[in-house]
Amino acid sequence: MVSTEIIRNAQKRIKDIITTTPLLSSERLNRQLPFDLHVKAECLQRTGSFKFRGACNAVFSLNSPGQPVIAFSSGNHAQAVALAASLGGRKASIIMPADAPQAKIDGTRAYAAEVVLYDRYSESREEIGKKLASDLGGELIRPYDDERVIAGQGTAGLEIAAQAKASGFIPDSFICCCGGGGLMAGSATALNDAFPNTHLYTAEPADFDDTARSLAFGKRQKNAPSARSICDAIVTPTPGEITFPIIRNLVRAGLSVTDEQALQAMRIGWDHFKLTIEPGGAVALAAALSDAFLEHFNETETDRNKGNRRQIVVMASGGNCDSEMFMRALSSKTIY
Amino acid sequence: MVSTEIIRNAQKRIKDIITTTPLLSSERLNRQLPFDLHVKAECLQRTGSFKFRGACNAVFSLNSPGQPVIAFSSGNHAQAVALAASLGGRKASIIMPADAPQAKIDGTRAYAAEVVLYDRYSESREEIGKKLASDLGGELIRPYDDERVIAGQGTAGLEIAAQAKASGFIPDSFICCCGGGGLMAGSATALNDAFPNTHLYTAEPADFDDTARSLAFGKRQKNAPSARSICDAIVTPTPGEITFPIIRNLVRAGLSVTDEQALQAMRIGWDHFKLTIEPGGAVALAAALSDAFLEHFNETETDRNKGNRRQIVVMASGGNCDSEMFMRALSSKTIY
Repeated sequence: MVSTEIIRNAQKRIKDIITTTPLLSSERLNRQLPFDLHVKAECLQRTGSFKFRGACNAVFSLNSPGQPVIAFSSGNHAQAVALAASLGGRKASIIMPADAPQAKIDGTRAYAAEVVLYDRYSESREEIGKKLASDLGGELIRPYDDERVIAGQGTAGLEIAAQAKASGFIPDSFICCCGGGGLMAGSATALNDAFPNTHLYTAEPADFDDTARSLAFGKRQKNAPSARSICDAIVTPTPGEITFPIIRNLVRAGLSVTDEQALQAMRIGWDHFKLTIEPGGAVALAAALSDAFLEHFNETETDRNKGNRRQIVVMASGGNCDSEMFMRALSSKTIY
Repeated sequence: MVSTEIIRNAQKRIKDIITTTPLLSSERLNRQLPFDLHVKAECLQRTGSFKFRGACNAVFSLNSPGQPVIAFSSGNHAQAVALAASLGGRKASIIMPADAPQAKIDGTRAYAAEVVLYDRYSESREEIGKKLASDLGGELIRPYDDERVIAGQGTAGLEIAAQAKASGFIPDSFICCCGGGGLMAGSATALNDAFPNTHLYTAEPADFDDTARSLAFGKRQKNAPSARSICDAIVTPTPGEITFPIIRNLVRAGLSVTDEQALQAMRIGWDHFKLTIEPGGAVALAAALSDAFLEHFNETETDRNKGNRRQIVVMASGGNCDSEMFMRALSSKTIY
């Protein structure tokens, strides 16, 4: 069970390795909104996403010196484990689909990892991972169903709590992008401890709203195999086995947004916060600015900052996207 | 005279108002460079540039409650003074050229300032400013030739010193973009106090290298009136009266880069740091990656991190640019 104490231990372990990312706000945007918006800029984290927190906590928790680490991922977790292993003086083997974008394969190799390619249509990455772990005597680090990883991601929640307290506000709501759920499971644990009355929401792409539906049904649901989205970082098939019970326990509801809304949020993140947020990293910002959230917000929230404006915190979880996609976002219409 | 003590007082005054911006590095980029590069991300500062530091220090230094403030600027200083005044409960009148980009005029108005337009070809903004200050009983806040402003900008240098110490390194060199010189004058004072052996360099656009030439000649030089650059934030005609003696005393030399190099640096800032850096804000990063700096570096620097890689800190001073310009940068070739 991942507790706030375990997350605090993770923070002690990794705080000198990770970047303490800022919690940003924009007066120009806030003046156009019915609340104050705060963006946790995890796209500025080392390797370009929050994944580095969990990877570091897992790698630096290992006791056996020199034991290699193994991970499977097509993107952000791959680069995070590769760099964490390199900093920890360990070899990393990362199992990636042969048809992953060349830039992500090159990126992972740039952090000195060995990349093992597999055919995602005929081979199981889980089985390759287990075999490789056994052959190399290595430790497999899963992207979210691993308590060390969840605790590491939770340090983002601890930072948000400290930053909100330093700025003198209590978040009314926290919205977090959600794929397998590691970031939300850890951050929700830390935030619920600091601010038990803050409403927690996940955000997902419309056709990958497995967490939203799982929360509504009370048990894990799957996405349609035919579903597609530009939010490549969070297109997981179903909530995690370990993460979902935590999320079910703490999270109020799941929000979802279209790819078009994610692109608009990327544009707003660029205009008002000077950030590069990748599509999957922008869904929480998109959800905060959606009509659905505003309605839900108005119906269900109570004003806990009596007489003051409400305070909404959103997670911007990563910034690894190619320039074509980013230019597409910059070309989208500006609504703020 | 702006001393480190005065800058520390400025820091106490403004630290809860400004954003402590991160000092970022990219392992993937560093592996391709002969040194470790650290980027001070002032583009994440409130209002999108470091100018907010100096504006806040000036506004919050004022003793007379409710006294209005006045500034002239076509860009970043305008928005900074507008927001600082608004937060300090003061009215702001900002004198802007009638042909300034509409987005910057709208941006300044969005921070609740009154915008006074003038014709930059037939009128003097200095005279309009003095008259307005006299008519309104207001305080004129100049963009760089003001010790309160220089001290405020110097807090960026204090933060860099603290962040470098926390990360366990001593900067071999610090390169700072330079228009009127307020940011460099303040930051150089703070950094020279913390690290007296760090080599300090200014960076400018090739046709606006007035500081570089002024340093070489020992007295203030002017740029050709016909000079043009995309680096709109730092195309000042000559170094400041107050700033230049400080810079002459502390800065080793001035570096300069072409607009093309600035665009490439914007692309690298996006690829490796997930930042939006405007052209003028990118010249220090461009200078660090230029052949000229590498040669100069190799000839003159000694390795103060014995046996370790050299550590170079560059300032990314702002992020206010339009999407067309940013897409131009994203379309420039990637060299790293």
